[in-house]
Amino acid sequence: MDTICAISTAQGVGAIAVVRASGPSAFEAAGHLFRPEAGISTLPAQQAKFAHLYDGEQLVDQVVVLKYAAPRSYTGEDMVEISCHGSLYIQKKILELLIEHGCRMAMPGEFTQRAFMNGKLDLPQAEAVGDLINSQSETSHHLAINQLRGGISKKMHQLRESLVHVASLLELELDFSEEDVTFANREDLDRLLAEIATEADTLAQSFKIGNLLKTGIPVAIVGRPNVGKSTLLNALLQHDRAIVSQVPGTTRDTIEDTLTIGGTLFRFIDTAGLRNTNDEVEQYGIERSYEAARRAAVILYLCDNSQQSRSEILDDFHNLQAQVDTLDKHIIFIFNKIDLVNEAQGGMMDKIEERYPAIAISAKARQFVNDVEDALLDFVESHRVQDMALLTNERHYGLLKSISKSIADARQGLAEGIPTDLLVEDIRAALTDIGTLTGTISTDDILNNIFGHFCIGK
Amino acid sequence: MDTICAISTAQGVGAIAVVRASGPSAFEAAGHLFRPEAGISTLPAQQAKFAHLYDGEQLVDQVVVLKYAAPRSYTGEDMVEISCHGSLYIQKKILELLIEHGCRMAMPGEFTQRAFMNGKLDLPQAEAVGDLINSQSETSHHLAINQLRGGISKKMHQLRESLVHVASLLELELDFSEEDVTFANREDLDRLLAEIATEADTLAQSFKIGNLLKTGIPVAIVGRPNVGKSTLLNALLQHDRAIVSQVPGTTRDTIEDTLTIGGTLFRFIDTAGLRNTNDEVEQYGIERSYEAARRAAVILYLCDNSQQSRSEILDDFHNLQAQVDTLDKHIIFIFNKIDLVNEAQGGMMDKIEERYPAIAISAKARQFVNDVEDALLDFVESHRVQDMALLTNERHYGLLKSISKSIADARQGLAEGIPTDLLVEDIRAALTDIGTLTGTISTDDILNNIFGHFCIGK
Repeated sequence: MDTICAISTAQGVGAIAVVRASGPSAFEAAGHLFRPEAGISTLPAQQAKFAHLYDGEQLVDQVVVLKYAAPRSYTGEDMVEISCHGSLYIQKKILELLIEHGCRMAMPGEFTQRAFMNGKLDLPQAEAVGDLINSQSETSHHLAINQLRGGISKKMHQLRESLVHVASLLELELDFSEEDVTFANREDLDRLLAEIATEADTLAQSFKIGNLLKTGIPVAIVGRPNVGKSTLLNALLQHDRAIVSQVPGTTRDTIEDTLTIGGTLFRFIDTAGLRNTNDEVEQYGIERSYEAARRAAVILYLCDNSQQSRSEILDDFHNLQAQVDTLDKHIIFIFNKIDLVNEAQGGMMDKIEERYPAIAISAKARQFVNDVEDALLDFVESHRVQDMALLTNERHYGLLKSISKSIADARQGLAEGIPTDLLVEDIRAALTDIGTLTGTISTDDILNNIFGHFCIGK
Repeated sequence: MDTICAISTAQGVGAIAVVRASGPSAFEAAGHLFRPEAGISTLPAQQAKFAHLYDGEQLVDQVVVLKYAAPRSYTGEDMVEISCHGSLYIQKKILELLIEHGCRMAMPGEFTQRAFMNGKLDLPQAEAVGDLINSQSETSHHLAINQLRGGISKKMHQLRESLVHVASLLELELDFSEEDVTFANREDLDRLLAEIATEADTLAQSFKIGNLLKTGIPVAIVGRPNVGKSTLLNALLQHDRAIVSQVPGTTRDTIEDTLTIGGTLFRFIDTAGLRNTNDEVEQYGIERSYEAARRAAVILYLCDNSQQSRSEILDDFHNLQAQVDTLDKHIIFIFNKIDLVNEAQGGMMDKIEERYPAIAISAKARQFVNDVEDALLDFVESHRVQDMALLTNERHYGLLKSISKSIADARQGLAEGIPTDLLVEDIRAALTDIGTLTGTISTDDILNNIFGHFCIGK
């Protein structure tokens, strides 16, 4: 194993920066940067020491050195951390000196990859480190911390235990297969598999909300022209201005405005007003509005309380439903401009409340805008699982779908009375997927794909 | 004294970040973030410990904690360093928790200011910390490191000793003033003061080059239209592409291109071609070219070797001298386009070499461009003082000019035979300036001005 090094703090100039090296020659390489009298070679592990760092005769910086001895380090290898003054020149210089003395520049995520290889973390925990660093909101942070603590791993461990139990029952039969006996009661087996299937399916289904909570919940603001969509967006942003940011969308140059409400990130997409038109340019904008609604998890359906009649609103909404499958969307009706009419259309609201939440506001006067925020939080709360062990990772999701399918196949086979060895094959396929998820089974491709998305220095 | 806290690593997301607290309640405040069983309260100083950091019941992060006990810390106070995962959420959260438990957000440079107040650094050393963090080039780095090691402080100490010696001689006279005796030989005194003046003047004069080396040497590329100014700039940049960056100029939207050659930062300013014109817009551009030449320390005066005659070149140069005082500029003549004519105008070069270095190149063919770099480095070398104790700080420069003036006043007074107590006044003024420079005399205004320019967290 070679020795790697990297700047581990954020890119740029800071008061201090931390350069790390990990591997069998980490201590030796770092030793070259200090005079013998600095006593770095005899420095005990986990003991911080102030020292002068030299490039030959030239003083580079006054730094603090920390050693971690294998296996008691983040990577499980010998590690050195050098805290230096945070100029770009010094950071680069120390990195160059470490490379000159036998280290090599770390690949993205390579420190964490080594922690995984050395058994300090399983694969979902290692993946959680990446998520943790990229968390922007309290909610995504909690999801990552839970996964780092082994939330997903524990669930997978339980699933594995249950499947191994089933497999052992079946394999016992195979051992005595020449005698044509059936040890395992088929009904008991199916009951066991049904329980396992429920577990796996629930976990797989949790990806939908887990992924939304992690990456931000897309909310489309949709409605006729001039019902106050942009005014509502501005009112929402204004409300929490301190945490507003503009994120250029990755697709088609749309600008999304993100907003953290109650610790959860929402991605608001303001859309062009919907109406019948022959104007080709406007029609294109409207198609984009539909597209935004299709991508959204939540639709804020905005009506002009002062202008639109009950039937107009319902007609418009049915037009939307003709274009966008609203079945899997959370829809919130908003009756805007209550500053112009004294009250929202009471009957209308009752009507809609049978199926959809409805709120009366004045976006312009900033009245009841917090009710919209509350409604958004209700959506989050209704989907939040108590222990927060939600799937947030696409790789895990793919594997869990595959696990679910293998268990379903086994149940079907059981119902059809297929031979025991074929049943065992399905169970083994599920166990392999579990191993791939937790990392007991891994390939270079899988690992490169996972750690390649980390930042360098972690 | 209250307890301060800040994120000390660069702004942004990184693998790790470091949050620091300093002051009498640093240990106590940090203690609230950990469970008793983590043993943070009994953690010995300078011992790194892995621990779980909590916000009440909620796990925030797995971190490494380091304590430094007063006075053995950067600030001289009790300090805690928390190395956490580098997400923005975690950094902010830990800061919030520290503030919740009695710390307050540090002002820019406040850690270093406390180091100064507690006698860990004198004022020029504290200022050097700021310079060190902002150093972009090897040269500016070396200047800052030298100052941090006490380069300027030592020089000021020597100056102070000499002045105190003079003062003591004079004050002895004052003690016996009623007896009208003259203890100090006036010639000896003047010789002493002359030596001190030389020291102070040399140091003050070193500011010119010191400041250039620290902030980057401005180089104006000047000449007729179409002599190849932009081509030369591109050739220079191309040559060292890896370290090229574009810095928007602070004045008048000019774009400077900076380039580090031999460890020193140069700021190249490409200018509009010089010629007689009635076009108002072009005339404005030409005025800006003169202005750039006036601000430059080095002028690359570019001629078209294939087109311009000797007399044209000399005429043009005299026109430049009529607009720009070239006396204090380093001028390098460059004969471009030697790819078009076989050789540079030999006689011309000889002529100019009597006063100015001259180089023949082809910017387009990238020939001999490195000779231009060498000529720029020659300029640096000719001004570099051996021990690198150059003045780089405007505040120091102002005080040294004032010191020089006080000593000159004393010498003049000595020549004019003014009373001893007036002589002593001049010497005392110089001593006060020295104290202000090294920080033994300081006011809140001075300190706020110095540390207000630091980044937060240092």
